[in-house]
Amino acid sequence: MPSKLRRFLIGDPLETSQLVHQRLSNYMALAVFSSDAISSVAYATEEVLLMLITAGVMALELSIPISIAIAALFAIVTWSYRQTIHAYPSGGGSYIVAKDNLGTEAGLVAAAALLTDYVLTVAVSVASGIAAITSAFQNLYPYRVELCLLAVTFITIANLRGVRESGKLFSIPTYFFIVTMFIMVISGLYKILFLHESIRHYSPQANNIAHDVGIFLILRAFASGCTALTGIEAISNGIPAFKPPEPRNAQKTLTTMAMVCIFMFTGTAILAYQLKIVPHETETVISQIARGIFGKNSLYYCVQVGTALILILAANTSFADFPRLASILARAGFMPRQMASYGDRLVFANGIIFLGFISCILLIIFGGSTHRLIPLYAVGVFLSFTMSQTGMVFHWLKRREPGWHYSIVVNALGALTTGIITGVILVTKFIHGAWIIIIFIPVLVLLFNRIRVHYKQTAASLAVSGDKIDIEPLKTRVFFPISGITTVSIRALRFCLSISNDVTGIYINVNQESTEEVQAQIDMMKLPIPFVILDSPYRSIIRPLVNFIDDESRKNPDMIITLVIPEFMPRRWWHYVLHNQTAMVIYAALRGRENVVITSVRKQLPK
Amino acid sequence: MPSKLRRFLIGDPLETSQLVHQRLSNYMALAVFSSDAISSVAYATEEVLLMLITAGVMALELSIPISIAIAALFAIVTWSYRQTIHAYPSGGGSYIVAKDNLGTEAGLVAAAALLTDYVLTVAVSVASGIAAITSAFQNLYPYRVELCLLAVTFITIANLRGVRESGKLFSIPTYFFIVTMFIMVISGLYKILFLHESIRHYSPQANNIAHDVGIFLILRAFASGCTALTGIEAISNGIPAFKPPEPRNAQKTLTTMAMVCIFMFTGTAILAYQLKIVPHETETVISQIARGIFGKNSLYYCVQVGTALILILAANTSFADFPRLASILARAGFMPRQMASYGDRLVFANGIIFLGFISCILLIIFGGSTHRLIPLYAVGVFLSFTMSQTGMVFHWLKRREPGWHYSIVVNALGALTTGIITGVILVTKFIHGAWIIIIFIPVLVLLFNRIRVHYKQTAASLAVSGDKIDIEPLKTRVFFPISGITTVSIRALRFCLSISNDVTGIYINVNQESTEEVQAQIDMMKLPIPFVILDSPYRSIIRPLVNFIDDESRKNPDMIITLVIPEFMPRRWWHYVLHNQTAMVIYAALRGRENVVITSVRKQLPK
Repeated sequence: MPSKLRRFLIGDPLETSQLVHQRLSNYMALAVFSSDAISSVAYATEEVLLMLITAGVMALELSIPISIAIAALFAIVTWSYRQTIHAYPSGGGSYIVAKDNLGTEAGLVAAAALLTDYVLTVAVSVASGIAAITSAFQNLYPYRVELCLLAVTFITIANLRGVRESGKLFSIPTYFFIVTMFIMVISGLYKILFLHESIRHYSPQANNIAHDVGIFLILRAFASGCTALTGIEAISNGIPAFKPPEPRNAQKTLTTMAMVCIFMFTGTAILAYQLKIVPHETETVISQIARGIFGKNSLYYCVQVGTALILILAANTSFADFPRLASILARAGFMPRQMASYGDRLVFANGIIFLGFISCILLIIFGGSTHRLIPLYAVGVFLSFTMSQTGMVFHWLKRREPGWHYSIVVNALGALTTGIITGVILVTKFIHGAWIIIIFIPVLVLLFNRIRVHYKQTAASLAVSGDKIDIEPLKTRVFFPISGITTVSIRALRFCLSISNDVTGIYINVNQESTEEVQAQIDMMKLPIPFVILDSPYRSIIRPLVNFIDDESRKNPDMIITLVIPEFMPRRWWHYVLHNQTAMVIYAALRGRENVVITSVRKQLPK
Repeated sequence: MPSKLRRFLIGDPLETSQLVHQRLSNYMALAVFSSDAISSVAYATEEVLLMLITAGVMALELSIPISIAIAALFAIVTWSYRQTIHAYPSGGGSYIVAKDNLGTEAGLVAAAALLTDYVLTVAVSVASGIAAITSAFQNLYPYRVELCLLAVTFITIANLRGVRESGKLFSIPTYFFIVTMFIMVISGLYKILFLHESIRHYSPQANNIAHDVGIFLILRAFASGCTALTGIEAISNGIPAFKPPEPRNAQKTLTTMAMVCIFMFTGTAILAYQLKIVPHETETVISQIARGIFGKNSLYYCVQVGTALILILAANTSFADFPRLASILARAGFMPRQMASYGDRLVFANGIIFLGFISCILLIIFGGSTHRLIPLYAVGVFLSFTMSQTGMVFHWLKRREPGWHYSIVVNALGALTTGIITGVILVTKFIHGAWIIIIFIPVLVLLFNRIRVHYKQTAASLAVSGDKIDIEPLKTRVFFPISGITTVSIRALRFCLSISNDVTGIYINVNQESTEEVQAQIDMMKLPIPFVILDSPYRSIIRPLVNFIDDESRKNPDMIITLVIPEFMPRRWWHYVLHNQTAMVIYAALRGRENVVITSVRKQLPK
């Protein structure tokens, strides 16, 4: 039954040999890997405007140069990542690039930053997508946490179905969003440029008090807008999911994605400026733009629905990349090795489930309102950008392959700009929560190292040394605790006799009367083994048995004590409640002792 | 560590031979067994007045005749239970009396009614005690559920410490309440009779619209007041907890309790009438009386604190009786037998924990507001009274011991009155929830019978028949699944060789490369057993193994297959997360098969 449910939810298992057929076309890869980056468009402009408005409406003019700077940055980072894909055709996530060129610890820092970023992305994007829905349907608001968990569960299951299936499922809303945004930007620009429609003016309620616009404010606005860049690295991380030739296809997809994002982002910024839009508490900037251009017609609603969907789907990029990175770390011994094994559908199922689980916990803790998490994740993103680009600079310096002069300049430019921005974000967002990352990333790196040490020690102590190994049978002695003479205990006794000539029965004397009865039965049946009766003044079954076993193993430290426990299996599950689970309790009490082997011989009760 | 915590909370274990020293003096028994009955005084008058006020202030005059009727009823039932104690000196709860004289099913109905009543008593009394506290300290109101759970936990732990210790602990607040109530009643009566103080008049806001007072209303008021009788049967149930001569001491304590209760109840009713007290939403009747007599001085606060404490302590009577009744039922096979065993401190620990747990669940479900449960539990109480008294009538008819004429009249009177009242409560409270009991009690009786059938069937199929039993060793074959050649698997192999000559190794081929490596190692080491390699196209370890074992056991249905699994134990608990718990998963997958014996040979990893 649970197996059937599993088949229904995630489909039939796939053979290992199917792995190559699970690759993605560029069309689907754009949907899988870009939803995070594309969704950023839905809020990056708003973040910039929200910062600027604190200095008054006139400061909003600064949004144009800031947006151009961010678009330029987007181009630089994309360009820089194209070099990375070229150099690391089998997957060049920040972890690998940093590890190869800057050392393992640097790689782990990048990995920790990325993993943190992926978890936060899931929580933040699902929460903001659900917020878009609940602001349209106000009566759903009390159920926002449940809706968030539902969305995460849905995305988790879709990803467990496999890379191709989740690509198919999620490409429709991604392209829907791209198309509606394109229509909005193009028709908006057309109206402004050719029809000279100046559609709106600043609303009279807008805050008109002009403050001095300081450099710190500009930097903060710029840092806020940099969230537009989150998700760029996803493609370089996921090269093995592309069809061959993988690096070429990945580069093409990356360039397409960058062009789409830059167009949508700058388009939105220009429209916001021309339409003189002021950020507002109850209506998003995108919604104001769409309303300004289309009025409240069906195109407006398309933009709103598309925005909500793409925000939820941004989580999907993390689901594609987190398990992949975790599996790489697990294979290197830095994370639990369960993360490295393919599930039924040839995806890293444990990583997917783990990501889903952690995100749900975050969503529950923050009650589906994840605004406070946003400053946290920009730090992680830019830190990993910087490490990766810096790694690439060292890569070219070492290799000096043909054309390295060009590549090193590109990557150095990328490293420099993202490094500066990491600093800017840290400084401007420090008190807003970025400090948490400063503590959390080293802790994670420490944990990775401890896990690795454990695996190394384990492997060393498990290794069989030398060619000559001792395979003499171990000395064993069988003890056979019973609660009475029954068909079940007789069967267990016959098992004992089949594995050893040295069997001793044990009976715990909780109640003198019962003990005498059992003793009489034993005598009458002439059982062929000696019996030990253990007194139990405090009525416990376990304590006298454990003490006895410990005494015996102290007397013969090099002997294995085998405990054979008779156990019957009731016919119905609820019958288990009606019987003392003595076998289980004995097992729990003695499982820490390495020279005690515990076996239960079970018998089904007849109908 | 958990063992130390346990010692701290409930004390050192007591030897079985200490049982007789755990008896209660009459002084302590009154505290343990009467808190339920005595606490009823705190709300019975109020319940009567609340019913009457619906017909207007003039109807409150009827409280005097109704209270006198209830006091008379109290005397009758007490008198009747004295006969029961005399006839059943080793404990005559309703279950035993009804079973002995009216048959097992009748006994089970009484038992079901009583057990339900005990659970409801804990929930209702703890909730009302905490309500008394939160109405004094309003800012605790949001934490009422937590406070309820804390109170239940406290009472549970006190009871786990043992009968004597909980008696000592709880006798102080019980006597404190009795003393303060006596002072209040006596000084109130003194003021009215001798000082002719007519302290208050009906407040002008009181509802003055007079309605016709129908017989149904009077009956409902009477039925509501009958909650004063809950808890009378506790002593007859707990006779074995008294010091010898048990029945004599129990009778004395019962009489004392009845006199205390009748005095306090009638006193309260008279004072309420003389002081012209109208039930009020935000202040209890007792509080109004105390305020009227003392003013808001320290004596008033003593009454309030005493009331809160006794209400919480009323739960303690259930904790004394529920585990005892459950143990009697368990010994007869009607409840899980774990309920019948004495814990460390010679109390029925499982019953105590079970009662605490169920009450906590009820308190959580009803959010600490258990008003709706009150009509439910009066039905159970009076149903069990009626069954017990009726049983006694049949008892005397059968035995015809000296003096039976007198006893039968007393018990018949008791049976008749409580029977009528059961009917009255059922009719007047039916739609308020009493119908739930009509459904719940038969379900519980059915469950008791099903449990009994299961135990009987189990015993029958476990019984060894005939003198000649087959103790030939069973045929066994050992299979030995490994994930690689390690020190741990070599040790397990040595164990295999010690228990059987027929050992076969198993390796699951998830990955061709690793399989070839292991194969080479096996060949090189010249291991003395054959190996089977199982293919696993879907990468699962478990499925191929289970299929193989099932095939083998189909081939040899009368053979025991012993599976020896090598397992290593990491040094720290968190390391378990880092390893696949394959042994556990194999155990879970195969534990339903009775001719498969699963053993793990464990080895501690060295430091």
